[in-house]
Amino acid sequence: MKLVTFSTGTAHRVGVADPEAGVVRDIGELLPAGAGLFDVIADWERLGPVLRDHVPALPSVALDSVELCAPIPVPRRNVFCVGKNYRDHAAEFGRSGYDTPTKSEDLPEKPIFFTKATTAVTGPTAAVDPHHGVTAELDYEGELCVIIGRGGRGITRERAYEHVWGYTIVNDVTARDLQRDHKQWLLGKSLDTHCPMGPYAVSADEIGDVTVLEVETTVNGERRQFAPVKDLIFDIPELIATLSAGITLLPGDLIATGTPAGVGIGFDPPGFLASGDLVEVSISGLGRLSNRIA
Amino acid sequence: MKLVTFSTGTAHRVGVADPEAGVVRDIGELLPAGAGLFDVIADWERLGPVLRDHVPALPSVALDSVELCAPIPVPRRNVFCVGKNYRDHAAEFGRSGYDTPTKSEDLPEKPIFFTKATTAVTGPTAAVDPHHGVTAELDYEGELCVIIGRGGRGITRERAYEHVWGYTIVNDVTARDLQRDHKQWLLGKSLDTHCPMGPYAVSADEIGDVTVLEVETTVNGERRQFAPVKDLIFDIPELIATLSAGITLLPGDLIATGTPAGVGIGFDPPGFLASGDLVEVSISGLGRLSNRIA
Repeated sequence: MKLVTFSTGTAHRVGVADPEAGVVRDIGELLPAGAGLFDVIADWERLGPVLRDHVPALPSVALDSVELCAPIPVPRRNVFCVGKNYRDHAAEFGRSGYDTPTKSEDLPEKPIFFTKATTAVTGPTAAVDPHHGVTAELDYEGELCVIIGRGGRGITRERAYEHVWGYTIVNDVTARDLQRDHKQWLLGKSLDTHCPMGPYAVSADEIGDVTVLEVETTVNGERRQFAPVKDLIFDIPELIATLSAGITLLPGDLIATGTPAGVGIGFDPPGFLASGDLVEVSISGLGRLSNRIA
Repeated sequence: MKLVTFSTGTAHRVGVADPEAGVVRDIGELLPAGAGLFDVIADWERLGPVLRDHVPALPSVALDSVELCAPIPVPRRNVFCVGKNYRDHAAEFGRSGYDTPTKSEDLPEKPIFFTKATTAVTGPTAAVDPHHGVTAELDYEGELCVIIGRGGRGITRERAYEHVWGYTIVNDVTARDLQRDHKQWLLGKSLDTHCPMGPYAVSADEIGDVTVLEVETTVNGERRQFAPVKDLIFDIPELIATLSAGITLLPGDLIATGTPAGVGIGFDPPGFLASGDLVEVSISGLGRLSNRIA
């Protein structure tokens, strides 16, 4: 099932999208008053079957007549992210000199976790603010994002997928100068609108084997990144087990799993984003982000 | 005014504490239904005067008859934190070898921001989970924590204090091995119960010049850290201006401003915390955290 948060101009609504038929169905009448997509995920065991039974009978509107928002427009906490989690990207980032203080193409021995602030989250077709005057080195990072369903601590590798509700796409937009100069990455990763997300929250049952999905990023139509999820250095079960060893994961938690090689600083000279550029991130089965730099 | 979140055994309540008189007054009847301390701060312009007028007439109970929780037990996003923000601590951390990959006592040229996950937050007298098996190197960091009142972006140094609602104390408990091995600090800073906070959220008007406050940390009664807030390398206006240049700050946002010299890894050999140790962090005018390692 592909859940969406959409705007009709006046309010956020929750719906189920059918991109092949080009329609979306507002599911508000099946939910408790005021419930958002987050609440659907948190109560999925009860609501999932309700939606499966009743959504097909709901009235539909054309998907292109509504504005899709990030599936979870206001996450309940920062988005967990993973750095240097594809082999070739770890090498390009090491070579670039942005991974201070030393140049090293060594692969990480343990997963590198950081976060993006909640206010960075924006919609799948929203404009990305270049923050002129704050950063001069804007870069993209297309990523698969895991959506946690059932929370918990001490989740084992073996049971990790039981805690995955589903998936979406994230562009981990990065201000490289801030990422480098402030040492820890929070600031360079968290500028407003620097976390385009969506277009759908896709339930895991619709995906099957997530490792065969392929992540592709284009800039103005030119392919820059392309890799299968199976190339992750630390796979999804490993990320969940490592995070949850001491941190209680919560329903709706978002884990952006890392980006493949081909980011702007991987080029010589670096290919930073400029106003007007169109960045698109697509993942097989999950749709496409399409964000223009304002 | 000293706001508190407290538990009577059944539910979270919001109150105003008078530590000198040893009492707390439940202010629930003055607030919208279901409002927490966060909501009071977010609506302070309206509620502040109401509380000043009506709290003295409310019935009081003994402060030591209730359990104080963290003032904001569930922050709406991760706690912003600042690394290496006192000169002598930057040097001791640099010397320790935990600031990978290179040993350097250089002071940071720009503020180093990272976050602690919301689930790390715990009360001012709560037990701290040592997470045996996850970390073997538990350390303390006593810190002044700023509570944002009015949100905003592009806040200047000059207007920064207009956005500060008040202050509280945080112990930025740190798993040093995880902090070092995972490179970015999120994981080593975010284990459950590793952010004791409180005991009060103290409004800025009660503090006056925050830079004269003194931060003290003791372990089993022995003083380990002691410094005035004026020793911060990047002061509070600088932290707010730098963060908000590209990140919209929100009411209730928490910014832990950094820790003075004297943490466990500053000693040779390092003085890590063990089960049974009592860590106390006090700041003049803000009270005291008193947390035992479980």
